Amino acid sequence: MYELANEKCIFSFSRHNDPVLYVNDGEEVKIETLDCFSCQIKTNDDKLETMDWDKVNPATGPIYVNGAEEGDTLEVTIKKIEIDDKGVVATGKDLGVLGHMMNDLYSKVVEINDGKVIFNEKLSLPVKPMIGVIGVAPKESEINCGTPGSHGGNMDTTLIGEGSKLYLPVFVDGALFALGDLHAVMGDGEIGVSGVEVRGTVTVGLRVLKNLKLNNPLVKTNEVTATIASNESISKAIETAVKDMAELFQKNTDLSIEEISTLFSISGNVQISQVVDPLKTARFSMPNWVLETYGIIF
Amino acid sequence: MYELANEKCIFSFSRHNDPVLYVNDGEEVKIETLDCFSCQIKTNDDKLETMDWDKVNPATGPIYVNGAEEGDTLEVTIKKIEIDDKGVVATGKDLGVLGHMMNDLYSKVVEINDGKVIFNEKLSLPVKPMIGVIGVAPKESEINCGTPGSHGGNMDTTLIGEGSKLYLPVFVDGALFALGDLHAVMGDGEIGVSGVEVRGTVTVGLRVLKNLKLNNPLVKTNEVTATIASNESISKAIETAVKDMAELFQKNTDLSIEEISTLFSISGNVQISQVVDPLKTARFSMPNWVLETYGIIF
Ligand SMILES: [Ca+2]
Ligand SMILES: [Ca+2]
Ligand SMILES: [Ca+2]
Ligand SMILES: [Ca+2]
Ligand SMILES: [Ca+2]
Repeated sequence: MYELANEKCIFSFSRHNDPVLYVNDGEEVKIETLDCFSCQIKTNDDKLETMDWDKVNPATGPIYVNGAEEGDTLEVTIKKIEIDDKGVVATGKDLGVLGHMMNDLYSKVVEINDGKVIFNEKLSLPVKPMIGVIGVAPKESEINCGTPGSHGGNMDTTLIGEGSKLYLPVFVDGALFALGDLHAVMGDGEIGVSGVEVRGTVTVGLRVLKNLKLNNPLVKTNEVTATIASNESISKAIETAVKDMAELFQKNTDLSIEEISTLFSISGNVQISQVVDPLKTARFSMPNWVLETYGIIF
Repeated sequence: MYELANEKCIFSFSRHNDPVLYVNDGEEVKIETLDCFSCQIKTNDDKLETMDWDKVNPATGPIYVNGAEEGDTLEVTIKKIEIDDKGVVATGKDLGVLGHMMNDLYSKVVEINDGKVIFNEKLSLPVKPMIGVIGVAPKESEINCGTPGSHGGNMDTTLIGEGSKLYLPVFVDGALFALGDLHAVMGDGEIGVSGVEVRGTVTVGLRVLKNLKLNNPLVKTNEVTATIASNESISKAIETAVKDMAELFQKNTDLSIEEISTLFSISGNVQISQVVDPLKTARFSMPNWVLETYGIIF
């Protein structure tokens, strides 16, 4: 197993980034990550106002996966997520759905003990670690790590946690994979603009699939398979996610589009990943057993 | 317990509708419903093209609840939902997210046996009955039963099922409550434009709350409490649902807006009810235990 330290990080996904590690198809890598503020908020005296905003959303990498080529799919198996015992929650003026009701930026350091985030003296929340930023070099020359897209990136999707498999379309030789922005826990929508931001370590398995072609990322948990799409308009993101799932069923089954539309309508779920970044992220989630019934197995 | 037959139905929620039943605060009513097509699609020979579209989305009622006045809240406890052994799925050209991929209207009758919807010879889905149309007379003079709003109506919200409590703002004396459009099962988003449409019977308890004032409907299941909002823009619907939940926390706790924003961001979920009607419906869902921690108990 390879290891990668969190000093090796990027702030944009780009084909022009130099790989910091080369791995073979099928290898495991243990990747250390900074939090989304590059760990600049260590105490409640550290303020967002005076922080260096050029250092936001670091992703550790990029990793060159030998054999990955444009048109392939990179399968990322999330084997383990270990998180720090301290996190940061942040929100404020013009940030998130309630941003108009606040006058300043706000951040707070929270302790994480025994699998719980201590929100305050009254309330603790069970951790459910997930990865906010995860992706490959895009088709475009570069995309900031704060932005989601077909290459992955800042998708802030709660399903991308321990035990999940993420499938990313490959756009450049080697894929140039990176990840960061761990959350100890986050709600769908991320309405205040942050999860419980933590640094940590993620162990992934990386595999190149030559016979699967995706338009956009797809995530598979133990229960569901979800297509993920991002757009300025949440409605358009939803449409794209549903169409990508329909394409999967059209390629792999003999169901008519009418049957697909009704099946999706009664058994699939439109879900929200985040509504607070310049591009919003939505997903369309189908139970794995429905895919398996039709032999759609990755 | 009162009973109400499905011949007594409305196609618009309106203060001008004559009540078909008067009940006291606290009474139970067993309400029989037609399906959303007024049961015009009985076999696969019955076509949407030749159906009477003026008879779509009937709601049984309205029921006048003695003592209910503008500014009150009507608590609807959904005690039981019984559904028919036959349902209809429908989609087609220009209907739903995949409507551009179809050339005609489409409907299919499906059997419901032993708690399962027989979608086809390969696939059966467990039933999870829910109510698509449920509401009271609105502030406006009338709103078609196909449209959702602050009064409830065609919210197509999967959480509105057996065991849930729905809270509706009251706009007129007696509330003028009605319901219909049962689904044997539906996915969040209702992407094809229908659930498994069934006729059936719903038993509800109706209670008038004088000390709760809502802007929009709110539903409480065993697990979560969700504010529900509808708008042409799904983003605006989401914003309204989040703001309504924030108002509830501002009224009932001493949390600052910054604390509310971060708490919601890490523990609340933006969810989608339906994206296929002229007005879309979204909800913001918080775990009941978080509300209970702050003494927000209905
Ligand atoms: Ca993020
Ligand atoms: Ca984000
Ligand atoms: Ca984050
Ligand atoms: Ca409906
Ligand atoms: Ca319906």
